[in-house]
Parts: sequence; structure tokens; C-alpha cells
Amino acid sequence: MRKKISFSSDYTRGAHPRILERLSETNFEQIDGYGTDEYCKSAADKIKEICACPEGDVFFLVGGTQTNQTIIDMLLKPYEGVVAAKTGHIAAHEAGAIEFSGHKVLTIGNYGQEKDTLRFGDNIGKISASELDRFIAGFYDDANHEHMVFPGAVYISHPTEYGTLYTRKELSDISAVCRKYGVPLFLDGARLGYGLMSKRSDVDIRDIAELVDVFYIGGTKVGALFGEAVVFPRGVRLSHPVPVIKQHGALLAKGWILGLMFDTLFTDNLYFDISKNAIEMADLLREGLKNKGYELFIDSPTNQQFIVVTDEKLKELDKNIRYGFWEKKDAEHTVIRLATDWATKKEDIDELMKYL
Amino acid sequence: MRKKISFSSDYTRGAHPRILERLSETNFEQIDGYGTDEYCKSAADKIKEICACPEGDVFFLVGGTQTNQTIIDMLLKPYEGVVAAKTGHIAAHEAGAIEFSGHKVLTIGNYGQEKDTLRFGDNIGKISASELDRFIAGFYDDANHEHMVFPGAVYISHPTEYGTLYTRKELSDISAVCRKYGVPLFLDGARLGYGLMSKRSDVDIRDIAELVDVFYIGGTKVGALFGEAVVFPRGVRLSHPVPVIKQHGALLAKGWILGLMFDTLFTDNLYFDISKNAIEMADLLREGLKNKGYELFIDSPTNQQFIVVTDEKLKELDKNIRYGFWEKKDAEHTVIRLATDWATKKEDIDELMKYL
Amino acid sequence: MRKKISFSSDYTRGAHPRILERLSETNFEQIDGYGTDEYCKSAADKIKEICACPEGDVFFLVGGTQTNQTIIDMLLKPYEGVVAAKTGHIAAHEAGAIEFSGHKVLTIGNYGQEKDTLRFGDNIGKISASELDRFIAGFYDDANHEHMVFPGAVYISHPTEYGTLYTRKELSDISAVCRKYGVPLFLDGARLGYGLMSKRSDVDIRDIAELVDVFYIGGTKVGALFGEAVVFPRGVRLSHPVPVIKQHGALLAKGWILGLMFDTLFTDNLYFDISKNAIEMADLLREGLKNKGYELFIDSPTNQQFIVVTDEKLKELDKNIRYGFWEKKDAEHTVIRLATDWATKKEDIDELMKYL
Amino acid sequence: MRKKISFSSDYTRGAHPRILERLSETNFEQIDGYGTDEYCKSAADKIKEICACPEGDVFFLVGGTQTNQTIIDMLLKPYEGVVAAKTGHIAAHEAGAIEFSGHKVLTIGNYGQEKDTLRFGDNIGKISASELDRFIAGFYDDANHEHMVFPGAVYISHPTEYGTLYTRKELSDISAVCRKYGVPLFLDGARLGYGLMSKRSDVDIRDIAELVDVFYIGGTKVGALFGEAVVFPRGVRLSHPVPVIKQHGALLAKGWILGLMFDTLFTDNLYFDISKNAIEMADLLREGLKNKGYELFIDSPTNQQFIVVTDEKLKELDKNIRYGFWEKKDAEHTVIRLATDWATKKEDIDELMKYL
Repeated sequence: MRKKISFSSDYTRGAHPRILERLSETNFEQIDGYGTDEYCKSAADKIKEICACPEGDVFFLVGGTQTNQTIIDMLLKPYEGVVAAKTGHIAAHEAGAIEFSGHKVLTIGNYGQEKDTLRFGDNIGKISASELDRFIAGFYDDANHEHMVFPGAVYISHPTEYGTLYTRKELSDISAVCRKYGVPLFLDGARLGYGLMSKRSDVDIRDIAELVDVFYIGGTKVGALFGEAVVFPRGVRLSHPVPVIKQHGALLAKGWILGLMFDTLFTDNLYFDISKNAIEMADLLREGLKNKGYELFIDSPTNQQFIVVTDEKLKELDKNIRYGFWEKKDAEHTVIRLATDWATKKEDIDELMKYL
Repeated sequence: MRKKISFSSDYTRGAHPRILERLSETNFEQIDGYGTDEYCKSAADKIKEICACPEGDVFFLVGGTQTNQTIIDMLLKPYEGVVAAKTGHIAAHEAGAIEFSGHKVLTIGNYGQEKDTLRFGDNIGKISASELDRFIAGFYDDANHEHMVFPGAVYISHPTEYGTLYTRKELSDISAVCRKYGVPLFLDGARLGYGLMSKRSDVDIRDIAELVDVFYIGGTKVGALFGEAVVFPRGVRLSHPVPVIKQHGALLAKGWILGLMFDTLFTDNLYFDISKNAIEMADLLREGLKNKGYELFIDSPTNQQFIVVTDEKLKELDKNIRYGFWEKKDAEHTVIRLATDWATKKEDIDELMKYL
Repeated sequence: MRKKISFSSDYTRGAHPRILERLSETNFEQIDGYGTDEYCKSAADKIKEICACPEGDVFFLVGGTQTNQTIIDMLLKPYEGVVAAKTGHIAAHEAGAIEFSGHKVLTIGNYGQEKDTLRFGDNIGKISASELDRFIAGFYDDANHEHMVFPGAVYISHPTEYGTLYTRKELSDISAVCRKYGVPLFLDGARLGYGLMSKRSDVDIRDIAELVDVFYIGGTKVGALFGEAVVFPRGVRLSHPVPVIKQHGALLAKGWILGLMFDTLFTDNLYFDISKNAIEMADLLREGLKNKGYELFIDSPTNQQFIVVTDEKLKELDKNIRYGFWEKKDAEHTVIRLATDWATKKEDIDELMKYL
Repeated sequence: MRKKISFSSDYTRGAHPRILERLSETNFEQIDGYGTDEYCKSAADKIKEICACPEGDVFFLVGGTQTNQTIIDMLLKPYEGVVAAKTGHIAAHEAGAIEFSGHKVLTIGNYGQEKDTLRFGDNIGKISASELDRFIAGFYDDANHEHMVFPGAVYISHPTEYGTLYTRKELSDISAVCRKYGVPLFLDGARLGYGLMSKRSDVDIRDIAELVDVFYIGGTKVGALFGEAVVFPRGVRLSHPVPVIKQHGALLAKGWILGLMFDTLFTDNLYFDISKNAIEMADLLREGLKNKGYELFIDSPTNQQFIVVTDEKLKELDKNIRYGFWEKKDAEHTVIRLATDWATKKEDIDELMKYL
């Protein structure tokens, strides 16, 4: 049976071929474990160079939820929680991994909700500096705040779970609020490449390194077999990050595999080039969708596109393609996600268009 | 500079070439995430066939500490702890990962200690059925046991951290004690292949599936890039294992990579064949060591060999090979570990012998 | 300096004098520890009799947050969270005690918010059966729910943190939703007596024992020095509740003090009589407030009254009485809480009225 | 039926009558909650005066396990555990409360074990400075220590669970080891009064305040209804202890009850006087036991006495007195505990002697 082409997510394929090549080339080298090797060092150096943070610390973890849980546990004191958008991955789709490690996710609304338009809008998935400021100020103003969970870190995702992006101004404002209150800012970059390469973005990776206290550069969704590169641009404050990572079951024995993959991605601009491909394919897809008259659920500037289709049309699509079910819009319509990635080809879009 | 040959551990190399080939072959297939794919199903089926447990559940995690933490958390009620040897990996070298998830490790002695010979002896690293029975019986006999941590699971490693093995009789006795008290038995098989292929072992994988309640088949140290195959021979009791795995940050997005690797290892007997290689190389090594008059610290029947060397000799070795430092024996002697693995070649042993 | 009369809360005084008498009478008896004594048994028997739940389990803890944390941890599996109103005590004012024990609080709106009237309304602080049903159904309908926190228990407070009450019909509907999904219902009765004695309530304690799976009868705020009586009307399901209680630091060595206090409160209807006093005093207070033209912030049928005062008036009040600051209503008005309790006297209300 | 006189423990009675009087006197005062009141302040001031630590912080919790759990959680970083004797209360009899809050108890032997005499000996229950030093040094010497649990605090009990005491020299040596490694020293003083008043002790409360970083003065077992006074002689380092206390369910709403009880105990030397009574009664008891030829299991200098009795004799005793079962010594002998307390009278000892 012919396999149907899939746009269901951006983690359906293996790795960029250059990564597989290097895994083969180095397969019988004997390398030190737990991330203490030269490949990890080389990858970290390249990332620090690109981020212009020579004093930074970079280390490599396996997956997104694991990274969010470990980083947040590193940032928070026992009586602190992490502030996030209601739609943030840590708040909604990590099976309680943050609470499992003892911390509350303090949710605030998102732009969409501020405008009373729960779902649509360019800002869905984001938090606003002003609401964040009100939230933290409100906490300290509350006479009972010692009976409440302290805001000890702020989590944002960029791109968000809805594919939306912060502007440099917005990021800078959020950063300013965080610094005003001495609260570290953590940016989940599971799809960072797709955000950085968006034609509608004015944020580059050095902006991020400058404005946030810790972020990660997603590999799982951007060309690696798996892996996330965690960057503390001004160094990790915890004296002993290794046992904390180990304690979270997140210390890969053959850590050099992660190092090697990120070293490859950050050689010859590969990470950015393949990210750009996903964006170009998404732009092509969006053009096509518009031309065919599809309603965009969100006008996403990154690799995830969300459209509204009739349930009748959906049955037809089911025969030929795979997509991500997002939600029922009403009795007769459904929102679906179509994601491009680092490996999507123009022919894939053409084929998809044929069925749409 | 020439790289020194290393016998420091069994996780210094990548993966069996057949695994890399299959990663390449399938690289651009588009596969479902989170272990719901056909490769995971195929690998699980093969493992269940080999273990003769058609009703079993098999799933794939990334690394050892992560697996120990997740499984133990699945087995225990909040007021329960896990019984383990003092030398058990979970008790000694996992940075408190079990306690991080809220459970105490209840340590009991090991054979060596029972005999008042703390370190040497064929049974080092193991627990005995009789001591386990005394421990659990003693717990329930204690009038204050509701103020103590209940023994809710038993953890053993096979091979142990010292390379030693349980006999079928010993395993069967431990299993009988566990069943007498209704306490599940968990076997850490990070190096399971090396135990099963030892010429001095009378335990096969079906014995294990029959006698324990959950175990894992180590991939990280036996031919995979990484990964551990968890087997519940009579099914997992927890209604929802997925959110528990996710909560531990242990749910790999591209879970099919794990499935593919284990499918490869359990095709055409590969896992057992490459495990056998490590054993043959270790036997060769041990013979050589004996011939050269080295004192074996433990008479290990598996791939890890421990010898005593003078510190003078050690300095010399440092120039040519890499080994695992184990411990200082006295002012002038050191115990070192020499590990073979699935990829060790006869020439490697010959080269090593030259320096020894 | 004369002490100002206080209406700031219902936990400003010691205990009903009969309790102090019995503490004196029994002071030199020698009694078994940890709640295994005859006073605890007697109190439990009386409570089971009053609740018509002969098969139930009753035990005594020290305070509200401790009780909420311990009970919820007893009810939930690791991958489950507890559903509560956003305004629920566990969600807002327990410093993250639920998350500290590893569980998420899944918040849903309350009646007020459903009606788009965030603050006012008779139903503030409550959840509705219909929203609860939508929430749980929505969870199971979500294709990704294994990546989310399972709704494993439902928490309601009665009276709520705002003094409001569920009707028998509402409680019965919520109970039906919980039973439909097999999710236990937990009722926080820190102020239970004040709810049961409200003239506007049609709920008695047997209704509660019938409709919920576990609840507690507050002592701290209703006549005891401290203490909460936990009732599992159909028995506690956990095999070993004692080590769980101990593990939460909640097992009082001299548990008989709790037993003695509740035995006293449940002798000769004392708990209900003193609760009734608070309600009569609150009714008197509300009448007086209305007569003087004060705006009731919430029309609370229990012992907590919330009114809106001008900031100018507040300064005057500060000189003579103590009240609970609730929140700023606008630039010139403040919401304050005036609470009566089991010991409030008619003269106290008269004095208060003089200053209002 | 006549109640049998009990020597089973030191928490069988209520409180010193002066405490009950003051509870009555203040019963209708209206007092601020959560330990922010004047009685707590007064008690804290008196304790700081007695301890000669004007810069210290003092607060009041309800019970021992709760206090141990809360303090240790305040002291440790996530990757740290607490070092304790194997026989320490936190290691053996708190149902895993420390592990429940995420931390490992790192056990070391005790004097007895060093001497290969597991049970007997004046030093049973204690740790030695030299073993502690070896343990911590050994940890940092271990090349793999980043995969292990860091020693982040040291827990000792004084008197120990076996009634034994540290000398000033021993305490000073342990303190020096702790300071050498920058590890805070925590002293569990659940029975502190009985230790301080022992005729065989050269340690006073100022020594303790000088040598340890945090300790508590037990009230539950020494004249209070319940309660432990926590003293950080040089101030608590955590910025926000209140939410941590709350999070552990340990923040008593009517905290002033604790303040009032400790204010009473630390007025007119009451705490020390009643502690002295227990010691005098224990000395009387020990004399009597020796005269009657009983074998002392431990030569305890405090209020707990341990003796060996034949099982035949035990049956006889059962008819007339209550004692604490400690352990079976052999097939025909049992070790029992006889505890005096603040309220034991000479006549009680005389009666007991009659039956012995």
C-alpha cells in the first residue's frame, strides 16, 4: 500500500543526511560519555559564537518535555512556580511534568483572550508584557502573597504552539518586566529555527541570547534525530547542573551523539538553511491555500498552518494525505494543522495542493 | 594524535552498523510519533515472541536511569519504597533520581557483606532471597511498620554493577519471596545480553520473563545508539502508562527510532550474537590476564573484568590505553575495570595484552 | 491599650470552653498516640452516626491545607490532577501545596464567570455540574489526552471561600457527573457548620455523606483549637492511610487531643449549636448593613459578609474595629470581609454597628 | 476498669497545667493568625535570649516529622541529600517523609557499628565526626560524584532515639566537619530538654545554638500539648520560609497557640525545671532497675531507659503496667522501653518498682 504523504507534524522524519553520515563516520570512535566529549564542546562553542555569548553555558538534552521540566526545576526555588500562557506546552500538553517535579504552572491569558477573541488573532499563544507586569505586580500587592505561589520564572515559546511569533519589541518588553522583578525568562525554542527564518520576524538568535536567561534550540523538529541544545547565555547559576539533569533521567550516556548532531547543524549554516526551507514551503502552502479559498484559522508566519475545512472535505482528504487534527470548529467544520519541515519538498506541496 | 584504545566502558561506540543502515533506509519515511508506529509494534512482537509472553507489554525508553525511575514510579504506591542492594545502581549512582520522584530506596546488604567479605566474592552486587525474606518479614513484624516505608518492589540488576550473575535457582528463590509477599520484582537489564550469553550462566530470557514482573533489555550498552526495551511479561498494571512516561520526560517524540533499533537487534538473533562477541572477548581477556599473573578483583563471568594493578603499572598503562578507574585498593594498588562490548575485536584484546 | 474588636476572620479565638474543660479533665490521663485511642474512636463513632455512614472511615488532621494536600494525594494516581474552581483554596491560597506533592490543580471557571460577571453573584466560588461535565468529557474527547493531566478527583468547598453555598440539587448534579466518570468528589468543609446551619441551605450533613466520596468537618474555624475531621463515608480505599498521613507530616503524636475536641463538638449537638450562633450573628449583621445602606459585595448566606466601603470610611473604621481586607474595588472603594464565628455575641454586633 | 500506669512513651499526657491555664485566660482574645502575633514574638524573644542568638530566627511548628521534613527541605538544594545515622528518626521512622519531599537520606553507621557491636554501647544512635568526615571526603574524592547525591546537610538527634547524648567535644567536632565542607548541621531536639538536664551532659543550649545551624526545641514530649520551636541561631537563609512551611501543610492557622505554649515554657525556667523532673525520675528508675538486677540494654543518661526482660516476666508486667516494646532480643528475652516525662511522679516510679 502506498504510504500517504504526511503534513501532520514536523517530527515525522529522521535527520538531515549529513547527520547520518557523521554518525556513520564516527561510529567506531571511542568517545567519553555524559556530554564530556569533544563533539559536545565543539557544538557548544559554535552555538556560543553564533549567539555571541562567550560566557554562556550550553548543554544538550534529549526532548522537549524533558528539557522544559529540567530547566524549570533548575530555575525555581521550592516556593516558586513558573508563569506561562494558558496555551503553553508546559501548561497544557506535558502530562503534568512540571507539577510532577513539585512546581505550579501559573497561567495567564494570551493576547487572543485579552481581545475577547479566544482563538483567532496573530497573537494567539503569546503572553503580553503588560499582562505579565500586572500579574507579578498583583502578586506582590496581594496582602496574602506568602500563602500563594511566587512567580519564579517566566516561560514563553517562540514560535508558540500555534506557530505565532514575538516581535523584537514584544520580547524586549517581556524581558524588561522579568528583569524589573528579578524573574528569569525561559524561551522554549522547540521550533526555534522556523521562528528565526520566518520572513515576518525581526528577531535573530542574538536578540534571544541577549533578552532571555535560558532558551533552547530545538533539534527534534529541525533536522536532528532528536535533541535540544540548552543555552544559558550568561551561564547557568546552579553550581551542579549535572546531578539535576541525571535526577530527571535526562543525562544521555552517549551524550556525544547529541554533540555531534548539533555540531553538524551548526556547521556551514545548516540549521538556518534547513529551517528556511520549511518556511519557504509553508509560504508556498499558504499561498496555495489562499488561492483555493481556504479559511486560515490563524495567520501563522511559521511552518505550521491551520485551516478550516468542511467535514465532508475532510473525509476526502483522509484518503490521500495525513494532517494534524486540531479541533472541531462547529458541527460541520474542523480545524486541521498542516506542518512543513526541514525536509519538505516543492513536489510535496504540489501533491498536497492537488488533493486540497 | 593517535586515539588510545579504550576499555573504560561498554558505551563508548555508536551502534551496530545494521542499525545505522536501517536509520538511513527509513530516514525519509514519515512515521507516527510517541511509539505508536509499526516499527515499535514489530520490535515489541519479536521481543514478546522471544520471551514467550504473548500477553506482555513492551515499550521503549531512552536510558537506564530514566527507565529505572519511570518503572519504579509505576510500581510503587506513595507509601512504598523499592528494595535494592546497597551497591545497586539506583541506590548509588543515579543522583537521587528515585527519591526525586518521591520514593525511598530501601537497601539491604549483598552476599559479599553477609560473608563479611565486603568486596570480593562471586556474589558481590547481588541480593539473596533469604536476606530479602528476612527484611520483608522483619518489616511486617515491626509493631511500628506503619511509620516506616513499605517494601513495595524489589530491584535487582543482572548482570550486576560488578558483572556478577544470578543463577536460575537464585532468581527463582528471589521471585518466590516476592510472590509470597505480593511485591513486584524488577530486573535492570542494562547489560542483559552480556549476562544471557555468559558461558557460566544457566538463565535464559524466558526464565527472566517467567520469574520477574518487569525487566528491561539494555540497548545503550549492547549495540544500539541508545535505548532500553521495557518488558512487562504479564502486562503493565497501570491503566495509563503513557502520561506517566511523559511526566518523567521519557516519551521520545520520534519513538520509532527506538522501535527500529530494537527491531533490528531482535532480527536474526543479532542482539544475542553481538552480546556473545563481548563475552568471547572478555573470556580471551581474562585468560590473558591470568596468564600474565594479574589478580582478578572479582571473578566476573560477563563483559566487565576487574583487576588489581600497581600504581606504577597504571602510569605506564595510561600512556597506551584507557580503562575505568574503579577504586584505590591500598596505598600502592588500584582496582581498574576493563570492559569489552559488542564491537570489541580480537585485535583489540591483542593490543591491550601488549600493554598489560 | 484597649484591643479593637475583630471581625477579620473566624479563627481569631481559642476553643469552646467545654473543650478546654475536657482538656483539663483528661490532662493527666495516659493515652495512646497517633489517633489509636478511645477518644478518637468515640468521636469517629459519633460522626459516623450523625452522617449515617456506619461503614465509613473517620480520622483527624490538624489544619486545612494539610488536610487538602493529604486527602488529594490519597485520591490521585500519579498521572491525575484535581479539578477545582479557579477561586478554590487549593488553587489560589495554599502556596502550591498540591503541586508540592506532585499533582496539578485543573481549574475551571465558576458560575460568576460563566455569566460574564466575574465577581458578583450568588454562585461565586462554586463550580457547575454542566461545566464540570463539559470539562471531563472534553478531556476524554481530546485525541491528545494521554499527553495531558487526567481529571482524577473533583474538589469543591462548601461554604466556598466567598461564603456561598451549593443547593442540594447542585451538589447532587455534581455528584452524578463525578460518578458518571468514576472520579471521586472531595468536599472541603473548613466552615462546614456555617454552611449546614445557614437558613438559606437545603443541604444537611447526611446529604453530603451520601453525595461525596470524602469531606471534612472543619474544627479550626468552628469551635476547636484546631483540627479537621476527615470522613470517607464509604471507607477509605487506600490500604494504608497512616504512612501517607505520616509522610505528609500530618500524623499528630497526641492524636487524642483531636479526638477529644471532636468528641466534645459532636456531643449534645454542640457543633451545630455554635455554628448556628455564627449564622444568627451574621444575619443580624447583614440586616444592620442593609439598614445602614451598605452595598453587599456578595449576598452570602453564611458567616462571612462582604461589603463595599469608601476608603474614607475605612480610615475611620480602622480606629475602632478590625476587618478582613478583601480587595480594592476601584480608586475610592474597598471590599472588606466581616466574619462572625461560634463565639460572636449580640453585643459585638451592636458595637460593630455603632462604628459602621 | 482501672487504667494501667504507662511508661510506654513521653507523649501520653496533655500539657503542663500552666499552659492550660493560659489557654483559658486568653481563650476569647482575638489574635492574629499564622504566627504573626505577639505571643509568638514574645516566645521567640525569650528563646533567642536564652540561646544568646539575638540575630536568630525562631518559628513554631506542630510536630516532629513535619518539622524534620520542612527544615530539611529548606536546607537542601534539589541535588542534595541529608546525612544521618542509620538509626536516625528521619531514616527509619518517618514513613519516607524526606523522600516524599524529593531528598535522599544518606545513612552512615553509628558508633556502635564502628565498634562492631551493633546495638549496645553508650554511643548508639550517634554519628561520629571522623566517620562523617570520611563520608563527605569520600564523596568528593569519588570521580563519579556528580552521579551521586551530594551531602547537603547533616542531621543529628540529641538525645538520640536511644536516649544517648553527644558530649560538647563530639558536637564541636561534628560542627567543625560541617563547617569545613560548608554543610549545614541540623539538630533534632524533640527531647532536647531531657538531654540538657541530664546529669551526665556537658552541653547547654547556648552550645547548641553556637555549634549547629538549625535545631528545634521539642514541646510535644516536654510539657506542651504539641509543638516544636525551630531556631536558626544565625537566621534562616531562605528568603521566604512562610510559603515553604505552608506548602508542607505545616502553617497552623492559630499559630498563637504555639507561641503561647512556648512563651509559657520559657517563662520562669519552666521548660528546664520540668525536663529536670523527668531526668530525676529516670535516675530513680535506673537505680531501682539496677538494684533489682535488671540488665540495662543501653546505659541511657536521659529519660528513656531500655531493659532486657524475660518473656515470662513480660506477661506478668502486661497485667499491671504499660511499656514500650522495643525489640525481641532472643527467643526468650525482649527489650522494652520505660520512659519518664515532665509529669512523672515519685509515686509512679514506686508503683512501677512494685511490679518489676
